Amino acid sequence: MNFEAAVDVHSHVYPERYVSLLRARDAVPRIVTRDGQDRMLILPGEDADTSTSAGRPIGSEYWDGGRKRAFMDRHGIAVSVISPANPWLDFLPSGEAGPAATAINEDIETLCAESAGRLYGLGLLPVCDPSAAAAELQRIAQLPHLRGAVIGTTGAGRGLDDPMLDPIWAAAERSGLMIFVHPHYGLGNEALAGYGHALPLALGFPFETTAAIARLVLGGTFDRFPGLRLMVAHAGGVLPYLAARLDACVAGDAHSPVRLQHLPSTYLRQMYFDAIGYQAPTLALLISLVGADRIMFGTDHPFFPPHVSNAELGTTAWHSPMAHRAVLHDLGPQTEAAILRGNAMTIFGIALPG
Amino acid sequence: MNFEAAVDVHSHVYPERYVSLLRARDAVPRIVTRDGQDRMLILPGEDADTSTSAGRPIGSEYWDGGRKRAFMDRHGIAVSVISPANPWLDFLPSGEAGPAATAINEDIETLCAESAGRLYGLGLLPVCDPSAAAAELQRIAQLPHLRGAVIGTTGAGRGLDDPMLDPIWAAAERSGLMIFVHPHYGLGNEALAGYGHALPLALGFPFETTAAIARLVLGGTFDRFPGLRLMVAHAGGVLPYLAARLDACVAGDAHSPVRLQHLPSTYLRQMYFDAIGYQAPTLALLISLVGADRIMFGTDHPFFPPHVSNAELGTTAWHSPMAHRAVLHDLGPQTEAAILRGNAMTIFGIALPG
Repeated sequence: MNFEAAVDVHSHVYPERYVSLLRARDAVPRIVTRDGQDRMLILPGEDADTSTSAGRPIGSEYWDGGRKRAFMDRHGIAVSVISPANPWLDFLPSGEAGPAATAINEDIETLCAESAGRLYGLGLLPVCDPSAAAAELQRIAQLPHLRGAVIGTTGAGRGLDDPMLDPIWAAAERSGLMIFVHPHYGLGNEALAGYGHALPLALGFPFETTAAIARLVLGGTFDRFPGLRLMVAHAGGVLPYLAARLDACVAGDAHSPVRLQHLPSTYLRQMYFDAIGYQAPTLALLISLVGADRIMFGTDHPFFPPHVSNAELGTTAWHSPMAHRAVLHDLGPQTEAAILRGNAMTIFGIALPG
Repeated sequence: MNFEAAVDVHSHVYPERYVSLLRARDAVPRIVTRDGQDRMLILPGEDADTSTSAGRPIGSEYWDGGRKRAFMDRHGIAVSVISPANPWLDFLPSGEAGPAATAINEDIETLCAESAGRLYGLGLLPVCDPSAAAAELQRIAQLPHLRGAVIGTTGAGRGLDDPMLDPIWAAAERSGLMIFVHPHYGLGNEALAGYGHALPLALGFPFETTAAIARLVLGGTFDRFPGLRLMVAHAGGVLPYLAARLDACVAGDAHSPVRLQHLPSTYLRQMYFDAIGYQAPTLALLISLVGADRIMFGTDHPFFPPHVSNAELGTTAWHSPMAHRAVLHDLGPQTEAAILRGNAMTIFGIALPG
């Protein structure tokens, strides 16, 4: 196959050091071996499933840089900006999260440094301890292949609008590093049960992202840190579809405690987004709200694998990255090229290898 | 002002008989008098607010047909399809809900019959008792101005995919009546607290609608009742933005229990939607997914009132209906006219008066 070169800004890894952490645990998130197959249980409630099909299979595609590059070769991806997948260090006590973050971020830097320019990275942070997280961001800024950090939606336990997180936003703004906001817990999971993983992933994840980003906006984070660079997973959750409804509901509440310099929807235009929207109309809406220059191709690899054996994973063409690529075709060649690679090269400051 | 005539398919009433029910209660939903002003507490948690600004003011704009028509005149609305607002009869025990529904539906018919062709209606149903609800639908089919019924998202307590509801879908399919699905409880409210009503209304409502409709689809309701006519509130919640993501998450779950004749997103094209999306890009996405002929203008009146005294409500121009109308301008004159009135006239079988 002959593809136009892509840069993938939403590509996950579980470094081996992190995998060891998960193997040692006896509650989610953890990795268990059933019927000779390692399985990863990371979503709330997956522990209740004691079958051999609980969670999802996990193999070296999650930590082996060679397998990541083989996937990239197979799907026309020149460069990936890899980030640790959920749930990061959310499960570690504050004293352990800091040192673990430092060690894992070094691991990611090494993985990238050995990739001949194919991999750049986002690190992780001990978010539960904001001043340690701010210090870790300063360390990340010194690692030549790292471009920021990925975080979840819970902050230090009270959401992304918690003023306790201000040292993190301040450090991110000062360093120019990107903060990638990604869901993990889902929102409304009780109302989404009964159809396997489909509804928690399809709906609960974007609901969670949307609530977190809306709180961050209404809490005035961008008024306090206008230079903050934030990338929102999965085409922004669903906040783009609801942007003007949010404006209207804030304006319509006669007793609203919200005090912002601009309409809530305005702040969307300060954020960055991956293009994981699954359909052209979703991308078209996002473009018309924030502009095509803030949106970047992503795959969510190694999640959404094809239904083949782990051994075949490396050689099979995956449906999901092909679909995410195909969606961009409908947007015209200039926008397609910008979202496929140009925006990411500018925004993350990376060059295509060779 | 000179407006093109509109038909408003999302316009609420609380008939006086229903208001009496709410006045007699001592827990939400209820109406209380504070500082000489009647206030309506309907959202979960509003009871906790004992201030004079709890809930929202309620006056005769909620039950007086004359005031409804004055609002319509002021905003260029020729016909409104009025429906009881949330939470309908969800709070009544099954034995009381049936007779209350019958009486209130007669009240709505009377309100419409006395409006000189300006009002048509949707009734309500004792959803907690599906066979009584099916019988009530048959009664509604005999009322000359009623065109269907409005329901919430909880069904008989276990959601809209509960097979117990099949008698309701069967009766709706047989009669050709429209079922209007509307949120009330919100989804993820704990994660949306702290900014007044803004986040539960802006996000929690569409999350609730989305989960309910997704369950209804994945449960195979449209495979069993392909002729079912369903109208989804607020531009479909956010399901349109996530339609292809839902397809991918169902297909990607190797152990999915979902067995449907079509991709989940396909069923969106069998539904109808109001145009309460607050921004042109949201409407554009919805149109590209389901077609402009399934989308109809709505206002949500008397909710989202301007910040004026109750006495001024009747003479002041409201921002929200003007905004919902303005959004349609960007779609071109043919689409604008179809969504503004033509679709509703066809779909609900109504003619403009005089």
